Amino acid sequence: MGRYNRAVVLEQIQRVDGISRLDIAEHTGLTPQTVSGIVRKLLDEGIVREDGSSRVNSGGKPRTTLRVNADAGSAVGLHFDPAELACVVVDLLGRPLVTRRIPTPPGADPAEVVAAMAGLVEDVLAEAAVPRERVLGLGLASPGPIDQEHGMVVAPPQLTHWTRVPMRQLLSAATGLHVTLDNDSTAAAIGERWGGAGRGVANFAYFFFGTGIGGGLILNHQVYRGGSFNAAEFGHTSVTQGGLECYCGNRGCLETLVSSAAVRAETRRRLSAGGASALTGPFRADPESIDIAAIVAASRAGDPLATGVLEEAAGYIASVVVNVVNVTDVDLVVLGGHGIRHLEELYVDTVRAAVATRVMSRHIRVVDVTLSPLGADAAAIGAAALVLHSTYSPQLSALLSD
Amino acid sequence: MGRYNRAVVLEQIQRVDGISRLDIAEHTGLTPQTVSGIVRKLLDEGIVREDGSSRVNSGGKPRTTLRVNADAGSAVGLHFDPAELACVVVDLLGRPLVTRRIPTPPGADPAEVVAAMAGLVEDVLAEAAVPRERVLGLGLASPGPIDQEHGMVVAPPQLTHWTRVPMRQLLSAATGLHVTLDNDSTAAAIGERWGGAGRGVANFAYFFFGTGIGGGLILNHQVYRGGSFNAAEFGHTSVTQGGLECYCGNRGCLETLVSSAAVRAETRRRLSAGGASALTGPFRADPESIDIAAIVAASRAGDPLATGVLEEAAGYIASVVVNVVNVTDVDLVVLGGHGIRHLEELYVDTVRAAVATRVMSRHIRVVDVTLSPLGADAAAIGAAALVLHSTYSPQLSALLSD
Repeated sequence: MGRYNRAVVLEQIQRVDGISRLDIAEHTGLTPQTVSGIVRKLLDEGIVREDGSSRVNSGGKPRTTLRVNADAGSAVGLHFDPAELACVVVDLLGRPLVTRRIPTPPGADPAEVVAAMAGLVEDVLAEAAVPRERVLGLGLASPGPIDQEHGMVVAPPQLTHWTRVPMRQLLSAATGLHVTLDNDSTAAAIGERWGGAGRGVANFAYFFFGTGIGGGLILNHQVYRGGSFNAAEFGHTSVTQGGLECYCGNRGCLETLVSSAAVRAETRRRLSAGGASALTGPFRADPESIDIAAIVAASRAGDPLATGVLEEAAGYIASVVVNVVNVTDVDLVVLGGHGIRHLEELYVDTVRAAVATRVMSRHIRVVDVTLSPLGADAAAIGAAALVLHSTYSPQLSALLSD
Repeated sequence: MGRYNRAVVLEQIQRVDGISRLDIAEHTGLTPQTVSGIVRKLLDEGIVREDGSSRVNSGGKPRTTLRVNADAGSAVGLHFDPAELACVVVDLLGRPLVTRRIPTPPGADPAEVVAAMAGLVEDVLAEAAVPRERVLGLGLASPGPIDQEHGMVVAPPQLTHWTRVPMRQLLSAATGLHVTLDNDSTAAAIGERWGGAGRGVANFAYFFFGTGIGGGLILNHQVYRGGSFNAAEFGHTSVTQGGLECYCGNRGCLETLVSSAAVRAETRRRLSAGGASALTGPFRADPESIDIAAIVAASRAGDPLATGVLEEAAGYIASVVVNVVNVTDVDLVVLGGHGIRHLEELYVDTVRAAVATRVMSRHIRVVDVTLSPLGADAAAIGAAALVLHSTYSPQLSALLSD
C-alpha cells in the first residue's frame, strides 16, 4: 500500500494549493501518523515544500501548509500510435515542459519500437534538463485492446504481427523508469480532464478520432473504464442495420463509415460511379490525390459530391453522439484526435445541432460540444497524468479496491 | 446532515450482518461519537438491536455487534404506471411482505390518482399489519422525465394533460409519509440490484420494457443517473438512419421499432400488404385481435410473417444492447418489464447470441444476459429501496455532494 498511499497524499497536495497534514488525513481517510510519515519523506525528497505561511483554524492551533515543489520532479507521457510516437515531459503540476514527435519505425518489431521510444524519452528529458532521478515515472498510452494485468499490448491496429507484447516490462527495462500503461483513448480523455476541455466537468464523453475511432468517459469526476477496461468504444457502435461487417465483429459500426479511410473510399466510390464533381479530373489523374484535405477543399468551393460525402459522415457521428448522450447523460462532448483534421468545424457544428434538437435531456440543460484544445497531444499529456494521479492510474486504482 | 448520516449508518448495519460501532465509523468516515449517537437513537426506536454475541478483534477488546430488527420498520414502494399502480411493503431487510396492484384511474386528473395511490398504500399497510408509525417512508417510481429538485412528474406518457405535477408533495400530504421520488426505470434497476438479477454485480444495464422502453445503469456498484438524471434512455437510441421521427426528437429510436404498439403495427402493416400468414383470417375478422400473444402463438406454430416481425424486433433490441455494452462495458444485461411478456425467450436468446459474437470485450469475458426474476415488481421493490438506502436515494445522495 506504500506506493498507493504516497500517490494519494501527493494528489491531495497537488489538488489543493496549500493544505495541512490534518486536512490531508481528513480527505483521504489515512491516519495522521501515516500522512506525517509520507509527508516527511516527500519533504526529504524535495517533492513537497512547507509553505512559510500557515493557516489558523477557528479556535485551533496554526497548521503548516504544504505545496508541491513543481520543479522537484516530473513525469513523462508517451503516446504510441502506429504512425507516430509523441512524447511530453510535464512538471509536478502537470505543465508541459517539452513535447516531441517522431514517426513510428515502419513495419517494425517490438524491440525496434521500444528502442525508438527509449531514445525519444532520453531526448525529451535532456531537452527539458530534468535529471533522471527526478523522473517519477513514464505513462504509456497505447492503442487497445491492452491487457492491464500483464502490462501487455494485445493487438495494435496496423501492427498485425504484434500479439501480446509485454510493453510495460520492455519499456521499463529500456528506460529504467516505472511504466504505467493505458488505452490511448482513455489517456486522451484524462489529458482533457487534466489540462483540456474537461477541466472540472463532472461527466463528459471524449471522442477520439485517430486511425480508428475510440473514446473515453469521465463519469462523476472519475475515469470510467468499465468491467473489462473496454468502455467507451464509440467507434464500434452500430449506426445502420445491415451495414458492413467490421473487424470487431459488429455491423454498421461508426468506424466503418467515418474513419478517414472510409470517407476517402466513399468519395472515390461516388467518383467512380460517375458523380459530377470538381474532383473528377484529379481523381482520373491520380486517385491517391483524393485525400481528406482535397475533399474538404472541394466541399468548401461548393462541390456537391464532396459536400454530400462529408455531411453524411458528420450525420453518422452526430447520431452516435446523440446515442451516447442518451445513454450516459454527460454534460459535455469533446471531439479530438488527428483523424478530424480539416473537418473540425463541420463535425462540431453538425454534432452541436443534433445534440441541441435530438437529445432527451435537452429541455433540462444544454449539452456542450467542443473541439479538443489539446488536439493530438491529449493522449501524451494524459499518459503523464497516469503517473502523477492515483485516481487516473489503473494499477494504483486496483490497489484501492483490494 | 442528520437524516443523511442516519441513513448511512442504517445502511451499513443492513449490509453487514453483525457490525460493530467502530467498524461502522471506519466504513463511513463518520466519527465514533456521531455513530454512537445515531446507534443509540436507532436502538431506542427498536430499529436496530444489539446482538447477544460479540466479536473479539485480534488483540482488541470485545465489540458488541449490531443487527437490523427486520420487523421494527418497513418501507412502501409504489410504481406509478399510466395503466397500473403497483404497491409493495418491505421489511427493514427489504423482503416483500405484501404486493398489490390496481388499475390507474383512466384519464384521471392528478388529484384522483393521488387519492387512489393513498388508498392503495393504506390497504397494503393494513394487510401487512404494519403500524403507521413504523413506516420509514414511501418511495414513488414514476415515468420520466421527472424534476428531482422539485419532486415533480414533468410529463408522463399517455397522461398528456399532466404537466409538472408536484407528486412528492401531493402524495406526502395524502399519506402523511415522507416521499422519495425517482424515475421508474432507475427504480426497477435498483430493485434488480437489491433483490433481483443484479445482486452483487458491479456493472449492469437494465432494459425496462413498459409502455415505452427505458433503462437503468449500475456502474461501479452505484446507481448511475447522469448529469441531468436522464441516463440510460436506451429506448431513445437510434438504430436506423432515416427512421421514423420519435416524439423525443430523435429518429429511428428503438422504442419506435419494438414497443408492443410498434410490433403490433408492423404485423398489421404486413398483413394489410397481403403477406401470407395464418393471422390473415383473424386480422380480417377483427384487427384488434392481433395482439402480442396472438403474434407469438402464430410464430410458435411456424407462421413466417409473425416470425419475421418478431425476429426483426429482437434484432433491433440486440443491436442496441451491443451498442450499450460497447459504451458502458457492463458485466450483465437484464431484460425486464411487462412489455416483453410472451417474448422473453426470443429476446433473451437473440440478445445473448449477439452479445457473444459482436461485443468488443467478448474475447476477454462473457457478458451475461438474463431475464429479470422480479418481472413487473422490480420498480415497486426498487422504490422501497429508495427509502432504505442512501446510496439509492437521489435526495440523500445530493446531501452528500453538498
